[in-house]
Amino acid sequence: MTYIPKGKHLIAGEWIGGDRTFRSAPAHGPVHDFASGQVDLVNRAADAAEQAFEIYAHTTREERAAFLEAIADEIDARGDQVTEIGTQETALPEGRLQGERGRTTGQLRLFAQHIRDGAYLDRRHDGALPDRQPPRPDLRLIQRPIGPVAVFGASNFPLAFSTAGGDTASALAAGCPVIVKGHPAHPGTGEIIAEAIHAAIQKTGMPAGVFSFIHGDTHEVGKALVEHPLIKAVGFTGSLRGGRALFDLCAARPEPIPFFGELGSINPCFVLPAAMQARSAAIAEGWVGSLTLFAGQFCTNPGLLVLPEEGADAFAEAAARALEAVAEQVMLTDGMAQSYRDGAGRVGKLASPVAQADSHGRNARPNVYRTGAEDFLRDHTLGEEVFGPMGLIVTTRDADQMIQLARGLEGQLTATLQMDDGDTELAARLMPVLERKAGRVLANGWPTGVEVADAMVHGGPYPASTNFGATSVGTMAIRRFLRPVSYQNIPEALLPPDLRGM
Amino acid sequence: MTYIPKGKHLIAGEWIGGDRTFRSAPAHGPVHDFASGQVDLVNRAADAAEQAFEIYAHTTREERAAFLEAIADEIDARGDQVTEIGTQETALPEGRLQGERGRTTGQLRLFAQHIRDGAYLDRRHDGALPDRQPPRPDLRLIQRPIGPVAVFGASNFPLAFSTAGGDTASALAAGCPVIVKGHPAHPGTGEIIAEAIHAAIQKTGMPAGVFSFIHGDTHEVGKALVEHPLIKAVGFTGSLRGGRALFDLCAARPEPIPFFGELGSINPCFVLPAAMQARSAAIAEGWVGSLTLFAGQFCTNPGLLVLPEEGADAFAEAAARALEAVAEQVMLTDGMAQSYRDGAGRVGKLASPVAQADSHGRNARPNVYRTGAEDFLRDHTLGEEVFGPMGLIVTTRDADQMIQLARGLEGQLTATLQMDDGDTELAARLMPVLERKAGRVLANGWPTGVEVADAMVHGGPYPASTNFGATSVGTMAIRRFLRPVSYQNIPEALLPPDLRGM
Repeated sequence: MTYIPKGKHLIAGEWIGGDRTFRSAPAHGPVHDFASGQVDLVNRAADAAEQAFEIYAHTTREERAAFLEAIADEIDARGDQVTEIGTQETALPEGRLQGERGRTTGQLRLFAQHIRDGAYLDRRHDGALPDRQPPRPDLRLIQRPIGPVAVFGASNFPLAFSTAGGDTASALAAGCPVIVKGHPAHPGTGEIIAEAIHAAIQKTGMPAGVFSFIHGDTHEVGKALVEHPLIKAVGFTGSLRGGRALFDLCAARPEPIPFFGELGSINPCFVLPAAMQARSAAIAEGWVGSLTLFAGQFCTNPGLLVLPEEGADAFAEAAARALEAVAEQVMLTDGMAQSYRDGAGRVGKLASPVAQADSHGRNARPNVYRTGAEDFLRDHTLGEEVFGPMGLIVTTRDADQMIQLARGLEGQLTATLQMDDGDTELAARLMPVLERKAGRVLANGWPTGVEVADAMVHGGPYPASTNFGATSVGTMAIRRFLRPVSYQNIPEALLPPDLRGM
Repeated sequence: MTYIPKGKHLIAGEWIGGDRTFRSAPAHGPVHDFASGQVDLVNRAADAAEQAFEIYAHTTREERAAFLEAIADEIDARGDQVTEIGTQETALPEGRLQGERGRTTGQLRLFAQHIRDGAYLDRRHDGALPDRQPPRPDLRLIQRPIGPVAVFGASNFPLAFSTAGGDTASALAAGCPVIVKGHPAHPGTGEIIAEAIHAAIQKTGMPAGVFSFIHGDTHEVGKALVEHPLIKAVGFTGSLRGGRALFDLCAARPEPIPFFGELGSINPCFVLPAAMQARSAAIAEGWVGSLTLFAGQFCTNPGLLVLPEEGADAFAEAAARALEAVAEQVMLTDGMAQSYRDGAGRVGKLASPVAQADSHGRNARPNVYRTGAEDFLRDHTLGEEVFGPMGLIVTTRDADQMIQLARGLEGQLTATLQMDDGDTELAARLMPVLERKAGRVLANGWPTGVEVADAMVHGGPYPASTNFGATSVGTMAIRRFLRPVSYQNIPEALLPPDLRGM
């Protein structure tokens, strides 16, 4: 059964419309009208979140785990509807939406397990030493939730980084109410997920204000959200420009709050000489596959490939051949397709074409260019992210130049080595440079495909993220929404239950 | 043997003077001239720190632990000299300087033990699952040092929060080089500690750039330090105004960096009815003792005492009696004594005197005032920190008003309950409010005296600190200078040594 959007916001359990609306722009399927949020709604949602926090912060881990699992179940129960409206709004294929739903519900269930386990509380106890001079008091430490959190849906992951994505899952797991600003590129998908969360709230008896969802196609809601005094942190995945603007608002508040933004990355890949010699064509094919997957609309898209000059022609030819097989793809929005073409055009003026293809409307074809390390190092703009299936091959004269290029990079989500046994020495020189540049360093794979795991880091030095100490994927993401509190000589009965009996 | 200051900066192992100087203003003892740092020195120190980082980030934990212990040993070897110049410059008594030195070397040795132990690395491993669809790669996570760190010496702890204090100790333990901006109120004390660190660097063969120390009596050095692109984080303890200005500079950088500032707190103490009835006079005496210790020059000074109206007169009388026994004390600087008088004068216009005393020059006498909850809630300025031995007693009509007052507080380093068995119900209502307001909640003690321990939090919601997730005291302080890095399918030989063989 097809999901017919209400076109309404969900504010603490109530579906609320409004006079101001915007129209969805799906790639195919029916168009709908959606209310567009305003400041008063943000105030209402924030007040409700604050009220809910007083209860939700003191729920047991088991209660929150059951709530997260109920959300996952409710999303699964709407599986086909989610896939249908998701594919219509985003142009992503069915299989991708199904996979992303599995990732989304998997994340929710993983966080349920993670908080049941309890290691994330990082409990510490220094017992009293009454005979020491001066006596040491009894000290116990635990991580407590920080308060209401604002989450911005991402355009490129309508499920896994949006309404019930990793930010929402980790904040709810921590004990923080969430207010989601839905992405206007997939409002119906956002809404049906909000409805699933609403159903889970009712089933598990959670306070209604623990979750609100606000549609919006202007900056008004986002600005009001991050500036609201009751909001204590922000989770965001999106563009450098938009993210930096919100970061600046968070920093300028009377009470500054952390902005956990995952912004931009070109995910450099280094092909080392022995690997280049042994399997240049296979690497070129692998790269093109990763680069063009779902029109290259990944934060971890490998937009920069660095290799030795020797063999670069053959590599480029192999890449061009692989690119010929890539069909035209539909991007998430008309605006993103246009930005992609603009970005590719800008790079095309500075670098030589390896494979160049025009496209129109919401469609995109891959564009790959090539330049030398000197030119790349000279022009900072060649290192800026172009969102979409664009790649830049940069040739290097020797190992020193490859390292010099690595040193010149900005912060990245990932850095990749394509290497064989004979490359160990150069790889050992690159590793200390790359571990400073990226949140994740990988060998002989491609950076797209971000495992949801304990050991994952999806983040990195600026501009990859605005908080180099944080990750937005994996269990460590919960840390963003916790703060340590120390209890000194507090009677057992007054301690948080998780600190008793230590 | 008396320490004769060189009056010079220590930049990566070299003592460097300069044309611009300032003169120390000790409370007693000889006056000295000190070079005052400029931007070129910051550049030089930062370049050296970056160079040193490439080596220091890859030292073993044992090497860094030995380095930290060598610093502690070198400070101890200069113990009497440190105490002599420290008492002269700060007017703090000998016993306090000796105790603070023990705290400082104790912190260094604690961090040595902490990194030897290795739990702080938070290593995580998700093994490869080659048969899963899609296959899971091998993922390993570890915490890595972030890069050069700037530390600002604090006026009120010339040793434990200054040149080799908790910020420096935790950053060096993490693997980060440190550049200290010395506090101009105790330049000689800062310099002799810098000399001790210098000696430890030479003894343990650490790279010279791992530590630099810059004197300065203007904002120029501080501004240049936090804006320098090679600096990756800042540790600061000081005033709200100065701290916020530096925070704003950090946030406005092209690449924003975290500013770990510990700024202001009035450390509210709540006397609950049963405790009030049982031991009002003893509580009043305890409070006065904590409030006036070392002229009240503690971040955790209990500047606000909230109690029931009933019995408030007797409490105020007991406090006034206890205050009579407090001698005039010398403050850290003339300017701080003047600010104290200004602040007390401001509060004195809004509240009734309990004990009021005038003072002159660098001297201070305690001032205690009293007001009602309505007035306190109405006038925000009554909740602002006055650094020095000033206390404000606020009376509350009933339990609800006490809770209302707690809710209205800004972020705090600490919150204290004075309670007896009969107070449990009210305490249980206050606890969830106070744990949101403060980094440390304590019962039946006083907040001065911050234990250096695993379970300590010295931090809290803004303005207590600019990062509610961090502490500047205790082993958890090391987290501020680490970032997680994930290694995917990286060959064993290329992994950080601490990640091998998992």
